[in-house]
Amino acid sequence: MVFRATVLTLYPDMFPGHLAHSLSGKALERGQWAIDAVQIRDFAEDRHRTVDDTPAGGGAGMVLKPDILAKAIDHASAGDDRPRLLMSPRGRPLTQARVRELAAGPGAIIVCGRFEGVDQRVIDGRQLEEVSIGDYILSGGEPAAMILLDAIVRVLPGVMGNDLSGVHESFEGGLLEHPHYTRPQVFEGQEIPAVLTSGNHGAIETWRDAEARKLTAERRPDLLSQPVTK
Amino acid sequence: MVFRATVLTLYPDMFPGHLAHSLSGKALERGQWAIDAVQIRDFAEDRHRTVDDTPAGGGAGMVLKPDILAKAIDHASAGDDRPRLLMSPRGRPLTQARVRELAAGPGAIIVCGRFEGVDQRVIDGRQLEEVSIGDYILSGGEPAAMILLDAIVRVLPGVMGNDLSGVHESFEGGLLEHPHYTRPQVFEGQEIPAVLTSGNHGAIETWRDAEARKLTAERRPDLLSQPVTK
Repeated sequence: MVFRATVLTLYPDMFPGHLAHSLSGKALERGQWAIDAVQIRDFAEDRHRTVDDTPAGGGAGMVLKPDILAKAIDHASAGDDRPRLLMSPRGRPLTQARVRELAAGPGAIIVCGRFEGVDQRVIDGRQLEEVSIGDYILSGGEPAAMILLDAIVRVLPGVMGNDLSGVHESFEGGLLEHPHYTRPQVFEGQEIPAVLTSGNHGAIETWRDAEARKLTAERRPDLLSQPVTK
Repeated sequence: MVFRATVLTLYPDMFPGHLAHSLSGKALERGQWAIDAVQIRDFAEDRHRTVDDTPAGGGAGMVLKPDILAKAIDHASAGDDRPRLLMSPRGRPLTQARVRELAAGPGAIIVCGRFEGVDQRVIDGRQLEEVSIGDYILSGGEPAAMILLDAIVRVLPGVMGNDLSGVHESFEGGLLEHPHYTRPQVFEGQEIPAVLTSGNHGAIETWRDAEARKLTAERRPDLLSQPVTK
């Protein structure tokens, strides 16, 4: 089964964008995943192909119309049980655990918001899962959709050349990753920590684990109080 | 003063990517910001243009060599006081407040990690500020750099057509944003909440504020316990 992403957007030309490069680009060429960008505007029915309107109750910005977006979603999800996501700063923060869940499924239909927002009735009526990639505001949902897809594609079976390189990394064990070192042995007067060149694998593991715990406690104490997710 | 971004990467072709579209693309054309992608590999000195090596102490993946990366950073930051950032899941989580701080400055030098990580000695030696865009793992720092830049460019002076549309939005007041509605009045049997079409502006403000608080309490109680940032 190939992971299949359908992105609903007003800027289909943005895709696949940087997903056509590097790791995700090679996987796309090999057919390990697929992406299809659908222009929401194609579902507008008036002469001006209007997709947005002023917010009820007043205020700045424009709101994506529920009727047009519903038609686009229904078109994309006909006979399809892929999860329907809406990239939105109001959503549940994306985690590596959710990335792995989505990667284990058939794909995703991803709605990219623009303007001030999306009419709440289409979010409710089409049961869109709101997903946030972080506590900051972007120009639209498109850059966020690319982040979500980059994270998902990376963990699809067979995509990473060396599957082991996915084992020890930030968040997977609930901790930030320990520091890394490589040659040269001395860089600007600083040596690689002696334990790492000792050949004592037990001591190396202990040191790395302690460094990861120290770093997490310093920078992200919030992670230490959460249940560990895999 | 124009915000100037220099991105150090092994994939300079990824840039400007989606930043050439839409809001950030128009601002780039108008000269409201500038981006320059520098190939780290150009600073390697051996015949094979090697930029990485195996991790000291063993383990999967490869580590970016400190000497090569230091040369690239020094080249980019000669006579320059722009902040030096490293996109990394080990970093401090990006916030809208930090986005606004960076946007108020002269620009940024942004290092994109790849492979397993970056030698700790160059992070320390060049005082790189590690920035995380969220608790998930990407294929590299490049997609994260684009997110950072998208968020920054959006708040640069004169970039948003209607500056007011930046006023009421998620996080700026420490709350998620209230729901939005627009025409049609009835969508699949659901009406726009009556208060929004009442014309009573005081009642509309009160309703929106209450909805924002309710949503934040339900989805992101962590935001309510933080000091409000502007």
